[in-house]
Amino acid sequence: MTTAPTAAVLIIGNEILSGRTVDANLNYLAVQLSQKGILLREARVIPDVREVIVATVNELRAKFTYIFTTGGIGPTHDDITAACVAEAFGLPLVRHPDAVARLDEYYKGLNDTLTEIRLRMANMPEGATLLENPVSGAPGFKIGNVHVLPGVPRILRGIFDLLLPSLAGGPPVVSRTVGSFLKESEIAVQFEVIQNEYPQLDLGSYPSLRDGKPYTSLVAKGTDEAAVEAAFAKIFEMVKALGGTPEVVDAKATA
Amino acid sequence: MTTAPTAAVLIIGNEILSGRTVDANLNYLAVQLSQKGILLREARVIPDVREVIVATVNELRAKFTYIFTTGGIGPTHDDITAACVAEAFGLPLVRHPDAVARLDEYYKGLNDTLTEIRLRMANMPEGATLLENPVSGAPGFKIGNVHVLPGVPRILRGIFDLLLPSLAGGPPVVSRTVGSFLKESEIAVQFEVIQNEYPQLDLGSYPSLRDGKPYTSLVAKGTDEAAVEAAFAKIFEMVKALGGTPEVVDAKATA
Repeated sequence: MTTAPTAAVLIIGNEILSGRTVDANLNYLAVQLSQKGILLREARVIPDVREVIVATVNELRAKFTYIFTTGGIGPTHDDITAACVAEAFGLPLVRHPDAVARLDEYYKGLNDTLTEIRLRMANMPEGATLLENPVSGAPGFKIGNVHVLPGVPRILRGIFDLLLPSLAGGPPVVSRTVGSFLKESEIAVQFEVIQNEYPQLDLGSYPSLRDGKPYTSLVAKGTDEAAVEAAFAKIFEMVKALGGTPEVVDAKATA
Repeated sequence: MTTAPTAAVLIIGNEILSGRTVDANLNYLAVQLSQKGILLREARVIPDVREVIVATVNELRAKFTYIFTTGGIGPTHDDITAACVAEAFGLPLVRHPDAVARLDEYYKGLNDTLTEIRLRMANMPEGATLLENPVSGAPGFKIGNVHVLPGVPRILRGIFDLLLPSLAGGPPVVSRTVGSFLKESEIAVQFEVIQNEYPQLDLGSYPSLRDGKPYTSLVAKGTDEAAVEAAFAKIFEMVKALGGTPEVVDAKATA
């Protein structure tokens, strides 16, 4: 296995845990990171509680190459992510002059005023680097290996898409998927044999229901593209030999 | 704040972290737990890696009243949740006789055979209690405060819906929401004043874009229903006074 950078996503928000809001960022980040060859190793959803945010940021930033937080960077009293990240790094929270300039320009463009409350969105740990926001006024920021992003999906995507090219990636992970109406229990023995032939790959089996009938997707995944193709061909033949009708689910997808 | 039971959801699955699959269980569990008065305090997505699963199960079960795991309980080589939960509890993995009976009955009903591979789904930590599965053959199980559920959403919901009435709940959390096209920065000062008047409530502000325009949902939430109603009325008047057009988003919802 070639070493690849790792990542964790930290979703900060009571509204996800209460069920009020459905997270719409994790899958986006997961797909983009995979395509870049960055291994997303953990995602965590935590509440807007200072001690929890501080401790989790410190735990995750020590474990993974990149951390991406989402949520809690607006101007209201429950937006405490910037202050908590500063505390996690033992840094003062300061008003970032370039962030002030961005906000000033943004609100001028709207014929609106940069109020004291809106200036809260320029508060960041001392030494933070801005992450450009092509969608609205308030930039994200980066400090150490922690990238602080907003929770609103369209704004998060805008910032992340500009950020991604600057991150060091790893060898891209390639995957091929064969689906069929065979049950997992019908393929398990021979599927494991193929896994053992290709220890450098991850072979995964994902059951679902389609039209009420058990459907199983078999995925071969790894950075060794030739091995992925070879394992894929064997899985395809295995499904046929077991009486299934193999469907090639993806042409040649990353992830 | 009245004490309420707490919970964590542990989503086990490489496919979520690679972006291949969008999690469809967290929000369902979050809503159901909220309605029951159980506080979901954390959700974590981790890969199918033995040491990570064992360590995370042990960390979370010590911290929260209830743990719910999803995924990894099928019959294939990558289904290692049951073995990892057994290891976390220091218990042997044994074949549960009642689970064998359930599987036998299920496959007989399909005019199919309970093969050795399918019997893997009856492997559970010694002393586990079955969680009935009204949808398909393989039951979930419970050991200590850890509830082990499948990843397939329809099956997870079937098992969880039967399980939920047996869990001790807390005082139900009530919430009211006012939405408007005011920006967060326009309401932040006065919204914080209302929060300070009702320290027993959580007042949250959730920005989004609607038709490309900033839209803000203001939520008052807590177990003190009278206080929630009073804070809701004040938020509604605040939005009007600030020139917004308040919309009552929920009639009277839990969460």
